[in-house]
Amino acid sequence: MHIRIAMLGYGKVARALARLLLRKTDTLRQEYDLTFDVTGIATRSRGSAIDPAGLDLEEALRLVDSGDRLDALHQGPPVADTLEFIAACPTDVIMEATWLNPQTGQPATDYVRAALQAGRHVVTANKGPVAYAYRELSALARQNNCGFFFESTVMDGAPVLGIGREALLATTVNRIRGILNSTTNLVLTGLEEGLTFDAAVASAQAVGVAEANPSNDLEGWDAAVKIVVLANVLMGADLRPQDVDRVGITDITGEDIKAAIAEKGRIKLICEAVREGDLVRASVRPIWLPLSDPLCHVSRTSSAVTLETDTLHHLTLVEGDTDPTTTAYGMLVDMLNIVRGRFD
Amino acid sequence: MHIRIAMLGYGKVARALARLLLRKTDTLRQEYDLTFDVTGIATRSRGSAIDPAGLDLEEALRLVDSGDRLDALHQGPPVADTLEFIAACPTDVIMEATWLNPQTGQPATDYVRAALQAGRHVVTANKGPVAYAYRELSALARQNNCGFFFESTVMDGAPVLGIGREALLATTVNRIRGILNSTTNLVLTGLEEGLTFDAAVASAQAVGVAEANPSNDLEGWDAAVKIVVLANVLMGADLRPQDVDRVGITDITGEDIKAAIAEKGRIKLICEAVREGDLVRASVRPIWLPLSDPLCHVSRTSSAVTLETDTLHHLTLVEGDTDPTTTAYGMLVDMLNIVRGRFD
Repeated sequence: MHIRIAMLGYGKVARALARLLLRKTDTLRQEYDLTFDVTGIATRSRGSAIDPAGLDLEEALRLVDSGDRLDALHQGPPVADTLEFIAACPTDVIMEATWLNPQTGQPATDYVRAALQAGRHVVTANKGPVAYAYRELSALARQNNCGFFFESTVMDGAPVLGIGREALLATTVNRIRGILNSTTNLVLTGLEEGLTFDAAVASAQAVGVAEANPSNDLEGWDAAVKIVVLANVLMGADLRPQDVDRVGITDITGEDIKAAIAEKGRIKLICEAVREGDLVRASVRPIWLPLSDPLCHVSRTSSAVTLETDTLHHLTLVEGDTDPTTTAYGMLVDMLNIVRGRFD
Repeated sequence: MHIRIAMLGYGKVARALARLLLRKTDTLRQEYDLTFDVTGIATRSRGSAIDPAGLDLEEALRLVDSGDRLDALHQGPPVADTLEFIAACPTDVIMEATWLNPQTGQPATDYVRAALQAGRHVVTANKGPVAYAYRELSALARQNNCGFFFESTVMDGAPVLGIGREALLATTVNRIRGILNSTTNLVLTGLEEGLTFDAAVASAQAVGVAEANPSNDLEGWDAAVKIVVLANVLMGADLRPQDVDRVGITDITGEDIKAAIAEKGRIKLICEAVREGDLVRASVRPIWLPLSDPLCHVSRTSSAVTLETDTLHHLTLVEGDTDPTTTAYGMLVDMLNIVRGRFD
């Protein structure tokens, strides 16, 4: 089987995916009888390129890594923007990893909608489309017999959503509780190590975890978007990030951290979704946890989620040592499950 | 779709499965358009019953719960033993949850082989067939276009093997490390709480976790069988439990435990499988772990496993609050994935 892949975005995650596809080319052929071409790449600031015969992926990496634009690789009539790219690029699956505004879910939601309307399978690492339009987009995918997978939106490549599809069958998820934002967890760890708040943020920025403007993380927006993804997909909720009872960590002080440790616990930014009758309520809040709680030991950039169901009482996933390859791997697995036809 | 189910064994797990099937009857019909009959139950000490029209499952539970035999429910010519039962019972899937000799994998391995040879799908909660004959039995299943699933053999219903099938695609598992035996973990927790070794064992027996003869657990046999299942299935190894470098916890003293705590850590019975070139080496050993290790916080009857792959660096699953329903649920999920045709 041969698959044509188009990529939206060519930032850290998408380039890690390109490298992973190159590294796994032989494995895909040997284990899945699968060959592929990347027929297009669309970026926000590096131009775009379509080549129906398949782009030279190593050359595309070299160009962007050295700060050049992709347009030199383009074949055919010019495309003005990403929506035109989606309409023009001959592809079977679109791998979407563009920039996200967590307060609107755009422009990624429009991209995913257009791709599904054009009959393309979609794999996205982007929380926005799932947090803002899961019901609409998954219905659209079903209508068009397309896969719409998004493992990498929460906990990078850790298979929390795959577990939902393949292992949480005929069960009711009653509660989800997790540490889902790396920046805030790293800042809280920094505070425990004695840094001031500003120094802890600067340190998280220095290692490339926190963004230049870290407010979406520190104010709990990123975490809110993620708990909404989990609540909507695993609990059948229909929440939006604005529905989340959200408190960030900007008011947490070194004194709070010391007091938490003195009481044999830690403060963690906990995302939670709880079923209450027919409703699901979601929150993001800094909470004191005792050392006996598994989530208390999720430090630095690790993330974790505990699922409580009516059959599996406590199932916790912890992911450590993440990097862009981990996220890219979740996208690769999604693509392989689509290729295997497991997207119904 | 309608499925006929036969059950081998009617102990704690199989009866929990029967109750779960009754509790989930409406859910299975509504969510999976699936109805079922249990057409046969074979036990070691309570007789057996086959009814092609479907047994009364509640009556079967009532009989065994009150110490009676199942034979009163049997329709048709008598069957002398479990192998005859497998040949005679009209069924689509055999749910196997019989007693295991961890040093031979029998008689369960013979039962699974006979069931697959008869063209039945097999779901087993029994580690023996997988630890002693995984390659043979999975090849036999493929030949006969049958499913052969065994999620509940390791960590009860936690989807560690499902993750292997659905989420660890095109990747290499380099190391597996886990706490997989409840009895030894509960005994070690008891020692930490100040009990003597014998009192800790007695306490584990009193809550129904340790068996009357707990030597298979305390000497690390159960853990060895489980790490072999994981190594063979997730790492492509071909080990037997006898190949495992196995040390139990019978020599651990309260003094050892105190020393471990004084060094800010704990002693845990750690199962490990490590890829070394073309080989996979497996061990079961009591090991001191620092408090920073997630496995250090897996206490009492919780279990956990950390997978290290070439794409996901550290993925840990922790399961807490297990009971026979948790194990039975793993069997139900296996059965549903077979019904959905996802067994290739």
